[in-house]
Order: sequence, then C-alpha cells, then structure tokens
Amino acid sequence: MQPVYTAGAGMTKFGKDPRPLVEIFKEAAATAFDSSANDGIDAIYIGVMNAEEFTGNSNIASHIVDALGLAGTPALRVETASSAGAAALFAGFQAIASGYYRRVLVLAGEKMTHLNTSTTTRVLAEVIDSEERLCGATMPALAAMITEKYRRKYHLSQSRLENMLCAVAMKNHLNGVRNPLGQFHKAISRDDYFNSKFVATPLRLYDCAPITDGAAAVVLSAEETDVRISGIGQGTGPLSLRDRETFTSFPATRIAAARAYEMAGVAPNEIDFAEIHDAFTPFEIITTEDLGFFPAGKGGKAALDKKTAIDGLLPINPSGGLKARGHPVGASGLAQVVEVIKGLRGELPLKRAPRRGLTQSTGGLATNNFVTILERADAPKGKKRDLVAPIPRVVKPARKAARLRFAEEGVIETFTILYITPDGFLPPLALALIRDRQGDLLMAQGEDNAQLNIGQEVFLRRVDGIYLFTVKSQIQRVQDAFLKLFRRHQATNGDGDPS
Amino acid sequence: MQPVYTAGAGMTKFGKDPRPLVEIFKEAAATAFDSSANDGIDAIYIGVMNAEEFTGNSNIASHIVDALGLAGTPALRVETASSAGAAALFAGFQAIASGYYRRVLVLAGEKMTHLNTSTTTRVLAEVIDSEERLCGATMPALAAMITEKYRRKYHLSQSRLENMLCAVAMKNHLNGVRNPLGQFHKAISRDDYFNSKFVATPLRLYDCAPITDGAAAVVLSAEETDVRISGIGQGTGPLSLRDRETFTSFPATRIAAARAYEMAGVAPNEIDFAEIHDAFTPFEIITTEDLGFFPAGKGGKAALDKKTAIDGLLPINPSGGLKARGHPVGASGLAQVVEVIKGLRGELPLKRAPRRGLTQSTGGLATNNFVTILERADAPKGKKRDLVAPIPRVVKPARKAARLRFAEEGVIETFTILYITPDGFLPPLALALIRDRQGDLLMAQGEDNAQLNIGQEVFLRRVDGIYLFTVKSQIQRVQDAFLKLFRRHQATNGDGDPS
Repeated sequence: MQPVYTAGAGMTKFGKDPRPLVEIFKEAAATAFDSSANDGIDAIYIGVMNAEEFTGNSNIASHIVDALGLAGTPALRVETASSAGAAALFAGFQAIASGYYRRVLVLAGEKMTHLNTSTTTRVLAEVIDSEERLCGATMPALAAMITEKYRRKYHLSQSRLENMLCAVAMKNHLNGVRNPLGQFHKAISRDDYFNSKFVATPLRLYDCAPITDGAAAVVLSAEETDVRISGIGQGTGPLSLRDRETFTSFPATRIAAARAYEMAGVAPNEIDFAEIHDAFTPFEIITTEDLGFFPAGKGGKAALDKKTAIDGLLPINPSGGLKARGHPVGASGLAQVVEVIKGLRGELPLKRAPRRGLTQSTGGLATNNFVTILERADAPKGKKRDLVAPIPRVVKPARKAARLRFAEEGVIETFTILYITPDGFLPPLALALIRDRQGDLLMAQGEDNAQLNIGQEVFLRRVDGIYLFTVKSQIQRVQDAFLKLFRRHQATNGDGDPS
Repeated sequence: MQPVYTAGAGMTKFGKDPRPLVEIFKEAAATAFDSSANDGIDAIYIGVMNAEEFTGNSNIASHIVDALGLAGTPALRVETASSAGAAALFAGFQAIASGYYRRVLVLAGEKMTHLNTSTTTRVLAEVIDSEERLCGATMPALAAMITEKYRRKYHLSQSRLENMLCAVAMKNHLNGVRNPLGQFHKAISRDDYFNSKFVATPLRLYDCAPITDGAAAVVLSAEETDVRISGIGQGTGPLSLRDRETFTSFPATRIAAARAYEMAGVAPNEIDFAEIHDAFTPFEIITTEDLGFFPAGKGGKAALDKKTAIDGLLPINPSGGLKARGHPVGASGLAQVVEVIKGLRGELPLKRAPRRGLTQSTGGLATNNFVTILERADAPKGKKRDLVAPIPRVVKPARKAARLRFAEEGVIETFTILYITPDGFLPPLALALIRDRQGDLLMAQGEDNAQLNIGQEVFLRRVDGIYLFTVKSQIQRVQDAFLKLFRRHQATNGDGDPS
C-alpha cells in the first residue's frame, strides 16, 4: 500500500460565520494550500453532513470545486452523518494509498447557525431511527439515556456522575481558551457547569457541543512529509437504541480502533494524545474506554484525576474538543486531524513531545465511527502485534423488537427528561426505553411528570403509533402481584375459562 | 495498483416501488449476493443523491447497513448528484485498489416517486446554480438551452434536430422492451414522440428520463473473476451555464474519459458497447461525441443511421438507458455497470460478443461525471498509448459575470420555453441566457411570449434580483441604430455635454 502523508492543514475560525458554505470551504482550502507546497492537487474529497437541508443546495462537491476556481478537478462528497469529515479523510486516504492519485485535498465543513435551534435539532435528529424520532427523541435525548445506563452499570451516584461530566466540560473549555480558531475561549467554573440548564437529564448545556459554522482542510500526499497516516479504520453499529446489546460502549468505535491499531502496529498505550468526538461529555468518557486508554467504567475517574488534561498523562482534546472548538457537524472529524498534525509538529503545549496522535469521530448516535492514527514521519514504525481485540467482520444486530405486537407492560431500561424538544413537542418531555415482557425494547413517551428510575414497572398504551407509558404506583404493583397469584391458582386448579 | 474485479451484480425492478428506500436497497444487495460467492464483505460504499429531502432520513449509510443486518461493517455514502452511483463505484474501486479491503459491496439507489412532480423538480433543481434557479430554471430548462445551442452550432434545422432526438428516444425505448428490470417496456413510434408534450422546448416528454425508484448493487473484489475494471475516471465542470466556455461538449466527461482510456490503455474504437447517461436525449448525442465515439456534431447522425442500435456498430444503452430503464438518480450510474457486466457475460443480444464495455454517468448539469471501462478478464490487456486528449489537471472556469453591475441590453445566447415549472412559477416560462454588452452571460426570464431566437437583441431590467428580458422590436432596433449614430456624431463634433 502506498504510504499516505499529510501536507498542508488548516481550518477557518469556528463559530457563527455569516458567509455562505462555499465561501467557508474556500477559506479552509486556502489555509491548507498556504501551509503546503501548492503544486496542484489531483482531486478533492469533501465531507459535509447535510448541505441539502442546512443550505438548500445539493451537488455540493460541484458547487465547491467551482467556487474554488478548480472546475475540471475531480471532486466528490462523502457522508456518514457527524463523522463526514473523518469519512472524507478515509476516502482520500484510500485514493492515495491505491496509487490512483498522488495528492488530494480533503475538505470538510458545515453551515448551521443561520437556522433556528428547533429546525437545526430536527435536521440533526434525522440521523436517528425514525420510530424513536416519532416519540420526540433527539440526539441529546438518546445520549442522555446512554449516560443514565452508564451511571447505573458502574454504580455511580448521581453526584459522582455529574462531577465526572463536569470535569470533562471544564477541561475542554480550559483547553479551548488556548485555541484561537475555536468557538469558545472562556474557562468555565464548577458553578457555571452546575448552573447551566438541563438539555436532557442528566445532560446540561455544558455537556453538549454547540451549533457552529466552519470548515477544515488537509492535503494528503504520496510524497513523504513530516507526518504520516499510520492507521485508519471505520466501524458501524446498530441504528436504534432498541437494537443495542450494549449501551455503555460503542462497537463502531471498537471496530474502527481495532483496525487502526492493527494497521499502525501500535497499542493504545503508545498513543501520546488524542482528539475525541465529545459532542456529549459522556461520549468522551465512553470513548476513552472503547479506545483502550482506560478500563471500562474508569474513563470518568481518569477525567476527574486530570489524566486527560493537556499536561496530563494522556491529553484528550487539547483543541477544546467539539465542546469548546465548536461542532460544525461535517467539519469536526477533519478539524481533529488538523489539531493532531499541529500537536505532532510541536505547536501544542503538551508535556512531552508527541510522536503519535489519534483522532476518533462519531457519526450519528455512534452508528458510523472512524479512528485515525497519525505519527511523525521520523517516529519508528509500529510492529505487527496481537490485536487489542479481534475485528468483528460482522456484528449481528440484536433481535428487532416485534413492533406489530402490542405491548401492555414493561420495565424502564433507561430514560431522560428532554428540555429542548424538536418542533411539535412541548418540554419537559419524558422519554424512556422500555423492555417489554418478551424482552424486546421499545421507545415510549411519558404521560405525566412522575419521578423515573431504571427498573420501574410501567403500563403502556399505543396512541397514533406512539407508545405512551405511565409508571405503576405501589398499589398497582401489589394488585398485579395478587392478580398473578390468583391466575396461577386458577390455572393450577383447572377452574379457569376453558376457552 | 491491486486489480479490481466485479463479482455479483444486480438491481431491483426499476419503476414505482412502494417500499421504503432501505428495503429497496436491501433487495438490491440480495441480488448481488445471490449472483456471487457470498463469503462476506469488508465494507459497503453507498451512492444516493438526496435521501435527506426525498425520504426525510439522513445518516443513510448507517440506516442501510443496519437494515441489511450487517451493523458493524464499515459503510459510507458517496454523493455527486445524479452520478452518485458511479461515484460510489469509484470510491469502492479505490478501496480495493489500495489493498485496504479485499471485497466491498457497492450499492446505489433512490426513492422519488412518492413525492409530487413539482416537489421532485424543486429538489432535483438544487443541483444547479442558485442564481439560475431564481429565474425558475430547472434541469430540463438548462438541458434544453444546451440543445438549442447545439442545433445552432451544427447548423441543424429544427426538424433535423427533432429527428435526431426522436431517433435516440425510439432506440432506447425499443431496447427497454427487452429489459425486464426497466421501467418502460413499450416501443414508441415517431407519432408517439412527436405527439408528446414539450417539457422545455425543444425537449419533449420522450426526451427526458422519468422519475423512478430503484437500486443497484455490484460486489467488487480483489480476487480474479470474469470481469475487471480496467479504466475509471472522474471529471468536473463549471456549475452554471453562465460560466461555460462551451455548451455543446462537457469537459467533465472529456476529463473522466481521458483518464479512463489512459488507464485501460484503449482507444474509443476499442469499446464494444456503452451505457450512457441519457437523462435528456441530446446528452446521449453530445456524450457519444465527448467519448470520442463520433466526431463533434456527428453524434445525432450516428443515431439516425442506427449505428448506436443494439445490433449496430456501437450499441449505446442496450438496457434502454435512463430513458426507458428509468432514472432513480442515485442508482443510474451503478445500474449502467450492472448492464455492462451482463453484456460482457453474453447476456445481451449484441451482434458480436463484446470484450469491453463503457459506462458514462453525469452528475448535475454535467458538473460531475464519471467514465468506467469494464472488460472480460480473458480479454488482452490494453497497452499504454497516446492519449485521445491530454488530461487537463485544472480547467479554469470562464470569467464570472459581474453580477453587481446592472446590464440594460444584451443578445440571446440560447433560450427555452419551459412548460413544467417548479413551485411558484407559471408555465409557459421563457428563459434565456443573455450575453450583455461586456460579453458576460446572465440568466433572464422573458416578460412576454414573444417568438425567441438565438442572436436576438433584448432589453433587460432587474426586479427582485431577477433579470427580465423583452425582445427588441424592429422599430426599436432602428431607433437604437439612429441613436448610436447621433451620439457618435455628437462625440466627433465635441458638442456633447461636457460633464
């Protein structure tokens, strides 16, 4: 395989950018050309998540190549939801690795801030399963449900979990102060964090990446430069929460990472720093576990112990992450790569000079993820070694819930109270993943504002194709128990209705 | 470069398909698996143009891999407007050629028929330049303007042109009768053609590909099979008509073809049959010229002379083409490949057993095109030879029209009367590309239903950001001439206003 190197790399200032998307892309391209010997490129690989609905233009690759004054040059768009920037890098990597092209420009960006929040929330929610969306579920709602499962699985108290999330938010905002191209440059205090509003319990505003405009650019080259891509991998995972066997780990990351580590011939402990997709603070914690940086359930403690601080053992998101750098969805996966290149070139205040950095990008609700390992060209190459974990060629999804059957009762598997709702839903909106009597999962909307807990028993009814749930009261549960006893008695004595 | 072979290939029955998009994709995948040794695939490359607006779901790659029961397997979406299927094949090709994967599934499809025609027309029109769209221009409108330029450039009478277009439409519909998976199976007569309604003069309903649902699938493999991809290339071209230096030839095709021919080491006369993007019949004619099959201006005569018939010298679109097979936009570029594989396997009634077939796919208004050459693995490999034309690394777009300056007069460069208009525009709608006094091109809407001709002088005014034109009358042109004479007289005698 032809080795692939990075030449120029750059990005626009992330934040609210009044210019049209193609102009933002144009500036990003210029930053990458400025920092590389611009002797022409063979092709352009473009990552953008949803230019169609965010900007009203499709055929975006042609729009961009035309705006760059490069009409003629091959240009194609690659998309995997919020990891589109990493996907474009991946496709560009394969284009060079094949020997088909010698030099390609990878561009990734998004324009989002011109729309109102509920429209943006609706467009972003199109990445998730349509049945879950029917209940009013959004990306933050599902991320919150995963967080609640994580808390329960690792026996964390509410306040312990909140402290962990707060530690991630504070670290990334602190790192963001140093990043001139990021959206936010303000360190936040514990009070700032705990005073911020809930988006979807237990996630607050400071747990969620903002809405942002921006673009990033990286030139890939077959000619040797100072940085090479030594490992790259992609993985997918089940679309809906209902079909997941595990909630507190993302198979899409684990598959991508196994492939990238294998290719680079390195183990997780040989990574010096990483940029991770922290669209939600708990995802940074889970991802540091999935990448093998910390054992399962220990990622939060590592953040609390400042192991992931910029001057820590393993700096995570020195750029400020999606949290503080901002999250123009299509751009983020490539902006991470720009940051890692900076780090490898000694432009970040890391404690020790890094030889190897990693980026991890998440598409949708961890349904389409990428891991990329970059290293200094003067670093010794990794050796073929045992895999951290075998790469599953195919992950069979869990059995699909039998949706035609009508479930009447179930148990709360996880839940959230959503405060920022999509168009047509009023906050606060209680949402829960319910396990029915057959063991299938379904998404349901709460009928009232009862206190919720994992393991609670609920009644279900179906209205307009949506499941609604109410928590069983103490008395109802006692009645249920008696009824069950009575039925068993009837069955045993054979005096039931013969029909 | 690792050689790339095609294994399984198949497609759904194109037409009106009531199933959701992911179900259509699922069936397409099954057809490709059925016809190949299904020993697992490493990844999926998906071509779809605009699932977002056609179906309301984004993150389509994850939706599809989940629906296939293959969650875990890497899956990414590639998009270049209406050539998305060819783009997915191209990216999948590079993935295998690089040695990164050994076996990938390429899938491409679109779901369109569930929306009304004016919504579909609007969504499809998002591929074109936004300023041209403001006037009400659609894909057929711009294709019609190109056709009128072609007629004028090659000195064709109206009826000669119409006979050429009719020949292409009749040929493709006749071929479609034999294709069980196509949308239309009815041969059309000259009367059918000439009785069909105008969509945008001179293009009639039978000159335009229909709105269709469907998907295609091809398995690519590093293991040798009976068919290999011997050449593949991509090219782009200026987005808007206003920026084009040539209207009757598509640089995007010429660039893609030059690359594909060079790679395959063959000349156009070594191609035995081809599938070409005939979204509009004149595009088939222009493309057979751009591909070097016929000299410029001779593609129409070749169709009239039945050289491109299925039993002709160079069969074009034995499948029926987009015209009769149907045009689920994202799918078409890959369905062409499925057809060429069939041909190479001897499953088409071609006159002589083909060794080599070519596919050409067009994105948008020929802004993002692909050419792929497939050959029987037992055919002798092509040799490195002189290029048909040098590959331009970069095509500089023509000078952008100075849009802030207000043009008052101009000359019609080309025009159409649009009968199927997008939402908010009433038919018949006269549209013209006007060359102003400075030589810049602009798009304008006619104020009345005057008879139009290339070269006519027009007055322009600007209302709500749109140029409106009226054709100068004979008297106005005489007045103009007198006024010009008078001004020159004033200037010569120095008795003009000194300011």
